[in-house]
Amino acid sequence: MDQTRIAPPSPAVHAQALERLAGLATPAGALGRVGEVGAWLAAAQGEVPPRPLTDVRLVVLAGDHGVAAHGVSAYPSAVTEAMVRTIVAGRAGVSALAAAHGVDVTVLDVAVDADLSDLPAAVTARKLRRGSGAIHLEDALTRDEAERSLALGAELAGELVDDGAQLLMTGDLGIGNTTVAAALVAATLGLPADEVTGRGTGIDDDGWARKRDVVAAALVRAEGRTSDPVEVLTALGSADLATATGFLVEASRRGVPVLLDGLMSVACAVVAQAMAPGAAAWWLAGHRSTEPAQEHALKSLGLEPLLDLGMRLGEGSGAVAALPVLRSGIAVLRDVALLSEILPG
Amino acid sequence: MDQTRIAPPSPAVHAQALERLAGLATPAGALGRVGEVGAWLAAAQGEVPPRPLTDVRLVVLAGDHGVAAHGVSAYPSAVTEAMVRTIVAGRAGVSALAAAHGVDVTVLDVAVDADLSDLPAAVTARKLRRGSGAIHLEDALTRDEAERSLALGAELAGELVDDGAQLLMTGDLGIGNTTVAAALVAATLGLPADEVTGRGTGIDDDGWARKRDVVAAALVRAEGRTSDPVEVLTALGSADLATATGFLVEASRRGVPVLLDGLMSVACAVVAQAMAPGAAAWWLAGHRSTEPAQEHALKSLGLEPLLDLGMRLGEGSGAVAALPVLRSGIAVLRDVALLSEILPG
Repeated sequence: MDQTRIAPPSPAVHAQALERLAGLATPAGALGRVGEVGAWLAAAQGEVPPRPLTDVRLVVLAGDHGVAAHGVSAYPSAVTEAMVRTIVAGRAGVSALAAAHGVDVTVLDVAVDADLSDLPAAVTARKLRRGSGAIHLEDALTRDEAERSLALGAELAGELVDDGAQLLMTGDLGIGNTTVAAALVAATLGLPADEVTGRGTGIDDDGWARKRDVVAAALVRAEGRTSDPVEVLTALGSADLATATGFLVEASRRGVPVLLDGLMSVACAVVAQAMAPGAAAWWLAGHRSTEPAQEHALKSLGLEPLLDLGMRLGEGSGAVAALPVLRSGIAVLRDVALLSEILPG
Repeated sequence: MDQTRIAPPSPAVHAQALERLAGLATPAGALGRVGEVGAWLAAAQGEVPPRPLTDVRLVVLAGDHGVAAHGVSAYPSAVTEAMVRTIVAGRAGVSALAAAHGVDVTVLDVAVDADLSDLPAAVTARKLRRGSGAIHLEDALTRDEAERSLALGAELAGELVDDGAQLLMTGDLGIGNTTVAAALVAATLGLPADEVTGRGTGIDDDGWARKRDVVAAALVRAEGRTSDPVEVLTALGSADLATATGFLVEASRRGVPVLLDGLMSVACAVVAQAMAPGAAAWWLAGHRSTEPAQEHALKSLGLEPLLDLGMRLGEGSGAVAALPVLRSGIAVLRDVALLSEILPG
């Protein structure tokens, strides 16, 4: 991927959207972030008022993580496979939310450590490997695998954009993924393991200490390689998270806005922004995670989540739950009268 | 109205909903408040899983306030009339949000200080008076008017419930209403004017000081009458806010859940809870207002808003914007697989 800085959503259209917002028959600023989000979407679409979001796509990237065998998670790796099957069946948490809010969900087996070949080819045909290295002991991927993962993500985003997607989301699925995501954030932002380690799907105090030690050991192992985002993904990532990173870079490059989910997608966003400076201007944060690494990542990206509802489900659920706020922002810019229209002529 | 304590949503159904929530194919607690809201709605509906919300009604109650002539607002009272007309035309902020999220909006001229008789009878036929007294100088209403307003609110809620409404919302419209709402909160909760006075639709420092003095003078005037909620509405309220109060009491009495809006509906909720202890168990808070009185009111009701997006539009907009969170809560309880269904048999 080329490393040129990514241009932001149109500043001229943004200014035009803010002008329309200020001219609505509402007190100045009374729409708060709803109005701001509407103006941001207008800039991203290059059009005032913004068009309704009728084609929103979420890709859930599934993969296993070598660390999962080392006591960092409340669940065994077998759950990854079960959850892929549940999404395929349309019965997962994110499936229910996506159906309620009009989001098209695809799940992709990027690196699940199981044989899912009975599932449709659309789910399995792009599998890169089974699992990934235990990052406190070994690299997660080879450099070549990291690059192929990034390329897969770019390809996926490009296909969805070509197919007419107006807004993209990534979700992640894979036991152990909060450990890996925390390591990516810590390495990219130069933070210690203590500050990024959280409780994932619900580990106890001993589990938390093990998880922190895994992250700390991984960070020691990756020393001297953290200024190169591809090396960070190679040493500390996984195929699914590297794929998400490539997806985010390409979405920005193609000028399509992204609504980020919880820790995993925001961790990948930090790496993507390091890889393609300026990319973050194309992203909104959907949901505040209960994971501490997300807060650090959001701060570094200058993003403030739209929702804070204590969710920690992953799967893209936080992005989907936040989508109606974007629809509110579009609606006010499209459908509220201008003050000039209602004032007695 | 009789003063018996209002029974909460079914504790048995709530327990059954929490049991279903815990059995979903998601980690314990991973759905956060989305799951909690779903369980609460199940209890309110008396059914697990809860039914989809296909009939949601917002009533915007419009009225003027004598204090508006005393420099407490950034806008003149003439704006109240203009905004009623804009809602009737379907072009107000709340109209756009309601259309986006499937909410039926009615606006009612309860006490607008203007002649709106050219508007449909559905808007004007129940008008109680024009404006209300400037509460720092005189009572807002006569006791009889306060009682008639409460009865009107109860009647409105009853009609909507009879008509099949599954969820109710109230919005308020009327220049000066944040001053009156702050006074209602202060009087009911025993707070000083300093702690409840905010900037409404956007007054400057001098305006804020005037507004605080108005609230303080109103509180002095109402001394000795604050233990009787009807007297509080008589002395410090307005016809539109008293109507909203009656509406909230009746909704709870009829066992229909309410999603509260910003300061005005939460202020009325505090009075309604004083009038009908237990009523608050039927309410959720939609949106955190930027007005300080709302925070005090929410704390006293034990409610935490679902959204915090810096909105201060009124009109019921914060309740409408929060509705999708309720729909998310329903979707997860209805459509997510149970763990027992996906585990290998």
